[in-house]
Amino acid sequence: MQTVAIFGVGLIGGSFGLALKKAGFGGQILGVSSARTIDEARAAGAIDCGASMEEACREADLLYLAQPISRILELLPALDPLVREDTLITDAGSTKLAIVERAAASIHRAEFLGGHPMAGKEKRGASAADGDLFRNRTYVLTPTQQTSPRVEEFKHWLEKIGTNVITMDAAVHDRTVAFTSHLPQLASTALAGTVDGRVDTRVAGSGLLDTTRLALSAYDIWKDIISTNSGNIAEALDAYIAQLALIRAHLDSPALQQDFERAANFRGGLHR
Amino acid sequence: MQTVAIFGVGLIGGSFGLALKKAGFGGQILGVSSARTIDEARAAGAIDCGASMEEACREADLLYLAQPISRILELLPALDPLVREDTLITDAGSTKLAIVERAAASIHRAEFLGGHPMAGKEKRGASAADGDLFRNRTYVLTPTQQTSPRVEEFKHWLEKIGTNVITMDAAVHDRTVAFTSHLPQLASTALAGTVDGRVDTRVAGSGLLDTTRLALSAYDIWKDIISTNSGNIAEALDAYIAQLALIRAHLDSPALQQDFERAANFRGGLHR
Repeated sequence: MQTVAIFGVGLIGGSFGLALKKAGFGGQILGVSSARTIDEARAAGAIDCGASMEEACREADLLYLAQPISRILELLPALDPLVREDTLITDAGSTKLAIVERAAASIHRAEFLGGHPMAGKEKRGASAADGDLFRNRTYVLTPTQQTSPRVEEFKHWLEKIGTNVITMDAAVHDRTVAFTSHLPQLASTALAGTVDGRVDTRVAGSGLLDTTRLALSAYDIWKDIISTNSGNIAEALDAYIAQLALIRAHLDSPALQQDFERAANFRGGLHR
Repeated sequence: MQTVAIFGVGLIGGSFGLALKKAGFGGQILGVSSARTIDEARAAGAIDCGASMEEACREADLLYLAQPISRILELLPALDPLVREDTLITDAGSTKLAIVERAAASIHRAEFLGGHPMAGKEKRGASAADGDLFRNRTYVLTPTQQTSPRVEEFKHWLEKIGTNVITMDAAVHDRTVAFTSHLPQLASTALAGTVDGRVDTRVAGSGLLDTTRLALSAYDIWKDIISTNSGNIAEALDAYIAQLALIRAHLDSPALQQDFERAANFRGGLHR
């Protein structure tokens, strides 16, 4: 792997570039983005230089797609005629089934591997990129039919940058993140909407700040996530509403103690 | 105000003692608690010495009740025969209507003022007490029929320790905190219970940690809060369930953008 092209050099793409360099990658890192983003990513040291899509496809051994999901879905069919046959295309989209299916239908000349680094932070853009963003974080890869040297080499770099690689079926991944990521987001959004306008929020503790922090998230990122996973998210919301109704029924019952203890055990067991 | 007696010298009671001293209170601070708690509170510098309930009622100009709500409800009738007539009794319980009603029915010989400092942290006990815990925090007081010198003096100390004093009817307070504090707690408990056992939590981001932090809270504190505010909490849970159902209905609709934007505006406008 001599040349890597990162498509969309924001927080995730930029952090991948920085992490590769930090882990000793000595090849060239190209960035495919708007001119302003390229400048920002070069200034952050995340890429060596900008490139057009065509140049990147001609030169890169690895294409790392870190754009919004809808952009990745549009891009995949356009990449196929341009890539070299020994290229590996991978992505970092937050939902996997739509992307993996689009890749299966449109990438014929190269190899595709779906991926999702379980990492992020509140700030966006290459200027917030961090070479340690993926360290000790789970990195989900969707299954491949057979191992190839390119896939093995990419996994090797993921380990070098400190991720914990898990292979998971795309549909299972999407149902999992509906509960672990998309539900917390919508629970927070709904909580803010519930309190808004109803009471005097000068009378509030730090718990409201904690539980509504995610409500600050930008819709333009969540739009694609939700539209490509709405069935699983609806299931997660239904389960959450049922759990809230159960707790409501337990308000005057000793059964509430078990609800609290189970929740505390769950939270205590989450790895950070 | 020469002598203050703090009943229950845990996080809140201990922090009140430390804050008084920091603000220049030169009188004596007594602690009424178990022997172990008294030792811990003295070591933390939150009180000068321990006292029995009878001693404290004989000597103190201000009784500050910082115990669990159920203990305050039990204690009030026992205090009335013991206190001096010029004593002010106040409390720091997280719900107000049950306490204010109990005080109206049982405190005849002294004056009672309900209170609720909107402050806390994850750690408990006098060893976690902090003289700045109340600084820049809202401190709710329930209305009094007429101002008295003792009440004015207590308010003066609340201002000196840096709180923002708000007067609010006990019933309005309880409905308010049902939305701003009790609902976030139960939303977090329910979220943990929903995710628990359903999916592989190695595949989770930081959002799950944020939104389930409150799920670590101890049931023994929440038991009293919930049992003295279950009507308002049921209303808040119903409103939250309705908001979640609305968001579920918007999953495939452009209306979801407004839900996100409203939530972000609300959260951005919360004071810290």
